[in-house]
Amino acid sequence: MPDCPICQWTPANTEYPFLWETPAWIVKLAPNQSLPGRCIVSTRRHVPDLPGLNIQEWAELHGVIRKLESAIRASLGAEMFNWSCYLNHAYRETRPEPHVHWWMVPRYREPVTLGGLRFEDPYFGSPYDHDRWQRLPEQVWEDLILLIQTALAAD
Amino acid sequence: MPDCPICQWTPANTEYPFLWETPAWIVKLAPNQSLPGRCIVSTRRHVPDLPGLNIQEWAELHGVIRKLESAIRASLGAEMFNWSCYLNHAYRETRPEPHVHWWMVPRYREPVTLGGLRFEDPYFGSPYDHDRWQRLPEQVWEDLILLIQTALAAD
Repeated sequence: MPDCPICQWTPANTEYPFLWETPAWIVKLAPNQSLPGRCIVSTRRHVPDLPGLNIQEWAELHGVIRKLESAIRASLGAEMFNWSCYLNHAYRETRPEPHVHWWMVPRYREPVTLGGLRFEDPYFGSPYDHDRWQRLPEQVWEDLILLIQTALAAD
Repeated sequence: MPDCPICQWTPANTEYPFLWETPAWIVKLAPNQSLPGRCIVSTRRHVPDLPGLNIQEWAELHGVIRKLESAIRASLGAEMFNWSCYLNHAYRETRPEPHVHWWMVPRYREPVTLGGLRFEDPYFGSPYDHDRWQRLPEQVWEDLILLIQTALAAD
């Protein structure tokens, strides 16, 4: 889909770096790391909504959820995970071209430390605040990508 | 699970009225109808997280999503849907007993009218506001339940 930013993504994209893939799904790290390990899980194919997923895509998604929760729990100590498929932004256009993607947001009962930085989850037990935004310093960001990729490979 | 409010639910519950079911899932109308047709989709079994769903539960979930989106689109004119599985509240306890449930929130580009009441979706194209709360007057609530049940039966 020519105008779809998710279709345009390539592994060379450094804002949404590649973490893992299956035949149907691509897992990327999200730019907002106020809750470390926040990921995006999107379909390789341009699928406009959840009903549009085919059997294979739906079945693989469960494996991705399992794998990703296990890896982020092991590498970052997340206690639980918030999953959502909202697709809202595409509907700001008069001709929406939504592309299925999930937000996977790890939640932390205890603060987590990465590269000397301490991350708190002040709303643990409640929905996270969409407006809390934090980009990581270059080195912490690169170390985090490697940490998660290693956990995914080991799992 | 004796202390789990979702396990304790029965069809006699009028706060979360029954809409539809499959062998693995139960669909209920949510008390907060600020966005009409907001539903909860929960597992019949006490499953603590998404990785814990078995193959049958996972496969059926896709059918529930399809069925429910189609029925709410047809009966209420929703344009698209926000799906989330957060499970946050259970983690306010020191011994969390989460039970998998999805929030299905219909989103409306145009206002919708029910029983003479007009409902707007001021944040269409963005995450909905968790703090916007609206209970329906008894008759509107009962008519809405019937409307959705009829759409689900017809689909």
